[in-house]
Amino acid sequence: MSLTKRLAAEFLGTLWLVLGGCGSAVLAAAFPGVGIGLHGVSLAFGLTVLTMAFAIGPISGCHLNPAVSLGLATAGRFAWKDLVPYWIAQVLGAIAAGAVLYAIASGKPGFTPGGFASNGYGLHSPGGYGLGAAFLTEAVLTCFFLLVILGSTARKAAPGFAPIAIGLCLTLIHLVSIPVTNTSVNPARSTGVAFFAEGGWALGQLWLFWVAPLLGALVAGWIFPRLEAE
Amino acid sequence: MSLTKRLAAEFLGTLWLVLGGCGSAVLAAAFPGVGIGLHGVSLAFGLTVLTMAFAIGPISGCHLNPAVSLGLATAGRFAWKDLVPYWIAQVLGAIAAGAVLYAIASGKPGFTPGGFASNGYGLHSPGGYGLGAAFLTEAVLTCFFLLVILGSTARKAAPGFAPIAIGLCLTLIHLVSIPVTNTSVNPARSTGVAFFAEGGWALGQLWLFWVAPLLGALVAGWIFPRLEAE
Amino acid sequence: MSLTKRLAAEFLGTLWLVLGGCGSAVLAAAFPGVGIGLHGVSLAFGLTVLTMAFAIGPISGCHLNPAVSLGLATAGRFAWKDLVPYWIAQVLGAIAAGAVLYAIASGKPGFTPGGFASNGYGLHSPGGYGLGAAFLTEAVLTCFFLLVILGSTARKAAPGFAPIAIGLCLTLIHLVSIPVTNTSVNPARSTGVAFFAEGGWALGQLWLFWVAPLLGALVAGWIFPRLEAE
Amino acid sequence: MSLTKRLAAEFLGTLWLVLGGCGSAVLAAAFPGVGIGLHGVSLAFGLTVLTMAFAIGPISGCHLNPAVSLGLATAGRFAWKDLVPYWIAQVLGAIAAGAVLYAIASGKPGFTPGGFASNGYGLHSPGGYGLGAAFLTEAVLTCFFLLVILGSTARKAAPGFAPIAIGLCLTLIHLVSIPVTNTSVNPARSTGVAFFAEGGWALGQLWLFWVAPLLGALVAGWIFPRLEAE
Repeated sequence: MSLTKRLAAEFLGTLWLVLGGCGSAVLAAAFPGVGIGLHGVSLAFGLTVLTMAFAIGPISGCHLNPAVSLGLATAGRFAWKDLVPYWIAQVLGAIAAGAVLYAIASGKPGFTPGGFASNGYGLHSPGGYGLGAAFLTEAVLTCFFLLVILGSTARKAAPGFAPIAIGLCLTLIHLVSIPVTNTSVNPARSTGVAFFAEGGWALGQLWLFWVAPLLGALVAGWIFPRLEAE
Repeated sequence: MSLTKRLAAEFLGTLWLVLGGCGSAVLAAAFPGVGIGLHGVSLAFGLTVLTMAFAIGPISGCHLNPAVSLGLATAGRFAWKDLVPYWIAQVLGAIAAGAVLYAIASGKPGFTPGGFASNGYGLHSPGGYGLGAAFLTEAVLTCFFLLVILGSTARKAAPGFAPIAIGLCLTLIHLVSIPVTNTSVNPARSTGVAFFAEGGWALGQLWLFWVAPLLGALVAGWIFPRLEAE
Repeated sequence: MSLTKRLAAEFLGTLWLVLGGCGSAVLAAAFPGVGIGLHGVSLAFGLTVLTMAFAIGPISGCHLNPAVSLGLATAGRFAWKDLVPYWIAQVLGAIAAGAVLYAIASGKPGFTPGGFASNGYGLHSPGGYGLGAAFLTEAVLTCFFLLVILGSTARKAAPGFAPIAIGLCLTLIHLVSIPVTNTSVNPARSTGVAFFAEGGWALGQLWLFWVAPLLGALVAGWIFPRLEAE
Repeated sequence: MSLTKRLAAEFLGTLWLVLGGCGSAVLAAAFPGVGIGLHGVSLAFGLTVLTMAFAIGPISGCHLNPAVSLGLATAGRFAWKDLVPYWIAQVLGAIAAGAVLYAIASGKPGFTPGGFASNGYGLHSPGGYGLGAAFLTEAVLTCFFLLVILGSTARKAAPGFAPIAIGLCLTLIHLVSIPVTNTSVNPARSTGVAFFAEGGWALGQLWLFWVAPLLGALVAGWIFPRLEAE
């Protein structure tokens, strides 16, 4: 498969992740009386990955996330030379999703973007959690996310099931941590909506949602090969 | 498999999609105190497709949706000569579902049909979203729906999993977009209930729920073969 | 596999269906503030079947439901001579579940059984739906339930996935119809809790939850073989 | 696979079970307006097992639960000599999860641990259920949990699906029984958070959440081999 086609797949897939996940949060989470709540948003994020992994897994591997690409490279499952091109395609897809979502959301009379599903800590954490809790949450959850990805796609794993394991792992992570950071574990997802949040704070806090997930992914990429070695 | 049997399967399958999906919306979404909400309706729509795809996939392909049949034909996966017969069977199944649902729902004292789970924009959008946002939403989400269908049923895809990917993709689409248009991405589904909505507006807005999904499906049917080509 | 072992499996499996499904309704549906609602009950019923079908499917076929056994026999997939023994095991398992659930539920100070998750119509329908709507709902939904069972276990179906299709089909059926009849589609489930409901009405209305599901199953058992024949 | 690596996998997996399941309860269940409720917590617990079973199933078997290890040993599927090392790894992983969760949760201004998702009966049952109901619930549900585990991993079972059956069985168990005991069916999970609950009651009631689940697991380990024998 040519790199161009793989990058096109990563672009489309990350667009879908952000449009579906952040879209459910912006459009449907707090709909009066029958809104989907944090549970529905958690399911939506997971299903973006589950569906795309079945659709484009055979094309690009369906990373959709700079931390996933880094963790796979660290574990020796992905070529280091493709890392930066993948990151660029993922971030561009995420920003495109932010733009599409903005176009839809602004079609409602009286719309204001607010946080626009951005990730944050301290005053911008949904539950008011501080920087330390936010960093720990993002790093630990990303580390386990990568352990599940590496395990469910390992040589010994049952073929075909990885998209279910990985997608539902992202759902689980959101069920736990939306109150803490609005849940990132994905620097591209954080970047894609940060440009559209009101007040500029989301860009100012964006560093954490690159550093903590990438660190967690590095740790998992180091652990897993040692765990599975015979 | 004879065309008659395939059309019978599409009729029954689309009946199930509309009876299950719109039925959950009309009967259970806003049940006092313990209603299933938009989240439950989203799950119901997805499960109609998941269950039928396992049941009749080997018989008719389980399209249940004129946009799906068009997208598959565009991508070279479905014979153009069968397109119109499939569309007719799908629309008839959807209208039959509307009639069965009306018979059940009217068994409650004091019942009035209201919108009867019809799709709409502007004043008839659940959240008041305008025509432009509605068109964009339906076209983009149908396009990604077809990308997931084409990808999860491609030659390289893991066998057996496509009903899970496709059904849960429809759940995801509803989690995002019920507030915008009540979610169609399926012209047959929109047509099946539009006849039963009070006031006639649903038939007047029905054009959008044919044009936008079909357009999105065409785009996906053009993109995907280029993405997967070696 | 000996008939005794198959009947023991049906007994345990139906016990699980009623304990899990009706248990979630009695114990958790309306828990203050964080109750699981009709959505959670729908998921619980489906998961009883999904889990048991993986566990005892290879032993007894995991019918857990007199209507399922009848539909399978009608379609030529189950020996008529085993029908009555299966029905007896299923009903006994359901009654045992009712007793276990009663023992647990009565451990709460101030407990009164109320309807105890029984099925009903008219004054005993959760939403007040009349006899006609209740009969139509139970017959049509059981018919489609059997179509999904027959289709997902057909010779051409992908092996291994049937428990997912069948379990989630039961979830879907509950998402639609709890407001109408509290959802049966299973005469054993209705019988198992009817003995424990206050006031005796549940036994008086029990006939409908045998007749309508069995009728729907007969129709599906007649249709499906004609649909799949080459 | 060396015992050390298997124990490391059990440690990490049980850490994930308690961090994900109890984390969703402590951080997200009652979030104002859009909290995930008991339904979301039930899903989170199940998904911890589903995801880890796909990830580390081939390494350690992914028990994550002393009752599971005991039931498997009783049924002849696990070496008795590895039982105590597995129990130790599981309990240490659970306590580590309690500590990580405490570090995150205490990052919210005004945090008090309260019950910290501990299991209890009587005054400490979420719904006020007494000791007898709590014991019966934990023993019966653990027994069926083990039946599903033993059945879905039996020689005749479809390969690859066991993590789905087992994970979603744990979800089902929580949908039923959180109001009774906050749901354990896992002595390690109960132990991991009991140290962090306010007031010391959780350690005082901990005996029940070892005795009842282990008893239920023993019964299942005795029944299942007799059910499946030819």
